[in-house]
Amino acid sequence: MTRWLNEDEQRSWRAWLSASLLLTDRLTRELQAQHGLTMADYEILVRLSEVTDRRMRMSDLAEVTLSSRSRLSHQIDRMEKAGFVERQHCTDDRRGAFAVLTELGWTTLVATAPDHVESVRTHLVDQLTPQEFAALGSACRKVSDHLSETESV
Amino acid sequence: MTRWLNEDEQRSWRAWLSASLLLTDRLTRELQAQHGLTMADYEILVRLSEVTDRRMRMSDLAEVTLSSRSRLSHQIDRMEKAGFVERQHCTDDRRGAFAVLTELGWTTLVATAPDHVESVRTHLVDQLTPQEFAALGSACRKVSDHLSETESV
Repeated sequence: MTRWLNEDEQRSWRAWLSASLLLTDRLTRELQAQHGLTMADYEILVRLSEVTDRRMRMSDLAEVTLSSRSRLSHQIDRMEKAGFVERQHCTDDRRGAFAVLTELGWTTLVATAPDHVESVRTHLVDQLTPQEFAALGSACRKVSDHLSETESV
Repeated sequence: MTRWLNEDEQRSWRAWLSASLLLTDRLTRELQAQHGLTMADYEILVRLSEVTDRRMRMSDLAEVTLSSRSRLSHQIDRMEKAGFVERQHCTDDRRGAFAVLTELGWTTLVATAPDHVESVRTHLVDQLTPQEFAALGSACRKVSDHLSETESV
């Protein structure tokens, strides 16, 4: 028998849908307007900036950015054309290519980060009390862990 | 001065990003696999099913689905081809067209809803206590209200 959502659950579910849609949309538009980047571009710049030599195997980068291999490959094509990353192929490692952050990619991230963090604060963090934001994070972690663990099903 | 996120805030923010990306992705794939619909298709079927005569002005439908007029118009084109909705043009009302749910649209929604609700329960509601889910909903409502109110800025 179908376990329909009751009225409160329905309201919470719609609030989630609406917040996630509107927030993604707003942050994307602000990033685009200020720096011409998408959220996915930004995420890749951040991930590469955090690792040794600013380079990652494509398969690892796909995993941490929750992207499919093929989607990431198209993404890296575009970012390579824009000069933000380069592909490197290791001759002694047959497990595939690396993506490397370029100097332009790094300076673009440095220029973009303050505005993007300000957007995240304005539209999310500042709207909640610290307790509410921590509770939101904790709930999201549970949901995200469940989805990652059941990914291959 | 940039108000960087501290470590806890950073974790919460990444959990939010990850949960919203993975959940949208999973629900979309399940809807597609089971019934060949996108989340946006489903949302439109639901909205039209809830109103008198199962029809809405396109501009109102764009507003409740948080869509732009042009994005909705493309969406309705596809759904019209699939036979789920029809456009109606009122001769005595110059404020534009209506979208109407067809019988096929209605029966598709009735066939789809139990599976979709089950997906939402499995991947979101059942992962949290009722208190956690209510808190998530309440936080999302604050964020969503803020974003709606500042939309035109």
